[in-house]
Amino acid sequence: MHVKVDAEVKEMTKLAVASAPVMTTEGFLQHWLGHRALTRRVIAAFPEDQLFTFTAAPPMRTFGELGGELHFVSEMTLVGLLTGEWPEPDWSAAPKDKASLLEAWDALSARIEQDFAKVDPAVFGTVSSLPWGQMPAWVAAIYAVDNEIHHRGQGYVYLRSLGIEPPAFYER
Amino acid sequence: MHVKVDAEVKEMTKLAVASAPVMTTEGFLQHWLGHRALTRRVIAAFPEDQLFTFTAAPPMRTFGELGGELHFVSEMTLVGLLTGEWPEPDWSAAPKDKASLLEAWDALSARIEQDFAKVDPAVFGTVSSLPWGQMPAWVAAIYAVDNEIHHRGQGYVYLRSLGIEPPAFYER
Repeated sequence: MHVKVDAEVKEMTKLAVASAPVMTTEGFLQHWLGHRALTRRVIAAFPEDQLFTFTAAPPMRTFGELGGELHFVSEMTLVGLLTGEWPEPDWSAAPKDKASLLEAWDALSARIEQDFAKVDPAVFGTVSSLPWGQMPAWVAAIYAVDNEIHHRGQGYVYLRSLGIEPPAFYER
Repeated sequence: MHVKVDAEVKEMTKLAVASAPVMTTEGFLQHWLGHRALTRRVIAAFPEDQLFTFTAAPPMRTFGELGGELHFVSEMTLVGLLTGEWPEPDWSAAPKDKASLLEAWDALSARIEQDFAKVDPAVFGTVSSLPWGQMPAWVAAIYAVDNEIHHRGQGYVYLRSLGIEPPAFYER
């Protein structure tokens, strides 16, 4: 993305960057786990018989399928931050029912809580090779959460289409 | 949000926080503007006669109304970061048609590009009073972008319901 700034502004921005973290590692952990807790509530809000069958707008995937993608991308993100390797998930191994998806979700949340402190803080600034390209690890990590927010927002429409009130967005 | 960590892990997390910004001020600016560029493409993808009339799942708002909210929250965020004041927007002044919404969107993007370098980096760590509560400014700023991703994801379902292919999510 190209950001138009003149030379003087660019210089000020650089100074700002040096001195100002907007989000720290602890902030990111809270950001990530908070969104995961909300997404879990959205998964749980779906009736068992709709989670892997209903879509509000074909050819969009079911929320169960989207949830499987989100699970794998988050798992890849944790592994990537810990090891520097970001191997493409085996998408075919995705959970196929609500109980399995929630179980996988909770197990990964527990791993994130347990292992995140082992992440070398320097990793966030290093360029990483993801299945979809090269990017700094912090961009990959933020992208994983953004992708979760994006698809979860779609899940809100699915729930509304089913006549179900979604969980409050502002609660984490 | 409560994060369960034992004393030893908490100590490691604190050390990590001290040394590792995950997202810097420049990174946040790119994050913000990149998402704004994508949201603009989503607004632009709606047919003029559907943007303020269509909803994929009543009682959800139209994407035009959601876009007005996103515009005001982003404007409040810029003002809040610049001044420390986060006054509630006058929601009734929201754009009422596609051209007005895009015009307001572009004008604000230009202001963000122009004024962001004037933001005191220290503001991100200060507790701010928003219409919906007290929080560190970095939480408010990230929340504004998260809220945009959330509602824009809903716009993707609206577009699909209208038979329109949405812009690629991964392009910023």
